[in-house]
Amino acid sequence: MATKAEITAFLERDFPQCKCTVDACGDGAAIVRRRVGDAELRPGGTVSGPVMMDVADTALYVALLAELGLVPMAVTTSLNINFLRKPTADRDVIGIARLLKVGKTLVVGDVTIHSDGIAAPVAHASVTYAIPPSTAAAARTT
Amino acid sequence: MATKAEITAFLERDFPQCKCTVDACGDGAAIVRRRVGDAELRPGGTVSGPVMMDVADTALYVALLAELGLVPMAVTTSLNINFLRKPTADRDVIGIARLLKVGKTLVVGDVTIHSDGIAAPVAHASVTYAIPPSTAAAARTT
Amino acid sequence: MATKAEITAFLERDFPQCKCTVDACGDGAAIVRRRVGDAELRPGGTVSGPVMMDVADTALYVALLAELGLVPMAVTTSLNINFLRKPTADRDVIGIARLLKVGKTLVVGDVTIHSDGIAAPVAHASVTYAIPPSTAAAARTT
Amino acid sequence: MATKAEITAFLERDFPQCKCTVDACGDGAAIVRRRVGDAELRPGGTVSGPVMMDVADTALYVALLAELGLVPMAVTTSLNINFLRKPTADRDVIGIARLLKVGKTLVVGDVTIHSDGIAAPVAHASVTYAIPPSTAAAARTT
Repeated sequence: MATKAEITAFLERDFPQCKCTVDACGDGAAIVRRRVGDAELRPGGTVSGPVMMDVADTALYVALLAELGLVPMAVTTSLNINFLRKPTADRDVIGIARLLKVGKTLVVGDVTIHSDGIAAPVAHASVTYAIPPSTAAAARTT
Repeated sequence: MATKAEITAFLERDFPQCKCTVDACGDGAAIVRRRVGDAELRPGGTVSGPVMMDVADTALYVALLAELGLVPMAVTTSLNINFLRKPTADRDVIGIARLLKVGKTLVVGDVTIHSDGIAAPVAHASVTYAIPPSTAAAARTT
Repeated sequence: MATKAEITAFLERDFPQCKCTVDACGDGAAIVRRRVGDAELRPGGTVSGPVMMDVADTALYVALLAELGLVPMAVTTSLNINFLRKPTADRDVIGIARLLKVGKTLVVGDVTIHSDGIAAPVAHASVTYAIPPSTAAAARTT
Repeated sequence: MATKAEITAFLERDFPQCKCTVDACGDGAAIVRRRVGDAELRPGGTVSGPVMMDVADTALYVALLAELGLVPMAVTTSLNINFLRKPTADRDVIGIARLLKVGKTLVVGDVTIHSDGIAAPVAHASVTYAIPPSTAAAARTT
């Protein structure tokens, strides 16, 4: 297990290019936030698809880290995303991840993505991470 | 909108080969059930993948019918499923669908699949249906 | 590695409920066939979605067996399918699988699904199988 | 239909933040390229997942534009990606898109992603775009 403070420090050190911050994590879930600026927008004032995919990927990674501890070697093996509504240009993008399975080698979860403060989701993703078996075993016994 | 009784009668009449029954529906959600017998099992006492995909597909269809009324022309356009745990051979398979978007031409939702009475899900699916625009318009105005 | 004859005998013995037959396999690919009868049809004369998902799942399994040998413990971990066109009711459903990755624990491939003799595909799927690490290692060294 | 030169000019004008260039397009296919620099890398010298998702999304968009003409209103509705191998840090990322269906409202295709000059794919994606019905009709009659 890892706390919000530990995960935040880990991301800043090992993933300096990560553009999301951790709002909350634990109990098989995580909430991450990405600020929306010009770099995140597409013509017409909508947030680009890759930004939402990044939020989905990061949100599940944070939920995984909170559950298993700081597992740097976890890698995304698959991501499925449905885009539902146009995000709002002037609000942060929020990803709410929920772990569905924490197995010996695969971790699966889904992520609901919102514009901050708006109930209807803008996208929904399913994400799978692979973790090295030895890392998983170590995480479970610590 | 359609009630559980209306949907049950519709499925029996138009989809006689449908192997699921409706436990509940409404408010953007649906619960369906499929009995597990020899035809649903694989060697080793596990429920076959196509059975779970059928439950996912049907559960979202029922949620859609409950929301839009009896729309026979809705067709599945995509389905993504992650298999999480081995289902139990002697329990019904339950699909719990939740609508994420009801658009003019696309309806998207996710479905959590359980062995009846067991909390940890055996599978999780995202399903998209396409509905003819005219049908959708008619359903919305009735 | 396993031949078409070995895989056919294996499926008949261990998966007696399997409704597909092997047309060809080897070189990282496989072609399977499923006859279409009343049980495979939906009202309107179309082949049901679960039938196409079954063909996708089986086609990749056969490609995997041809590559790794008879690995009974391989299990599907995820399946993503896009339905493209209405299948023809009076033609077999053909699945053409292609392996994209054969890893230590995950095998990934895609499957193009046709009505027999018609060029435009009716569906396209991506499928992932997990194989027990020890099984994979044994298969690779035999 | 649109040519490579028309699509390149369109992307530069309407999508100035697009980081991919068009190598080739036409006949239901497209090849796009994204240079890999520090911004595209993750620790360990691997290309980040969102970069590969962006290449997949863009490659299918270019194939769509080549087929239907310059359709600015097309939007991605779903994307499914399997990550297969670690990309090479010092090679461009190449996306090879193939259209599977060009319907009235949905366009579906798959994209194979490579490190430039290396045969084994690093990822494989299925992507769906929605196009406004009127736009699709206009594109088809011009």
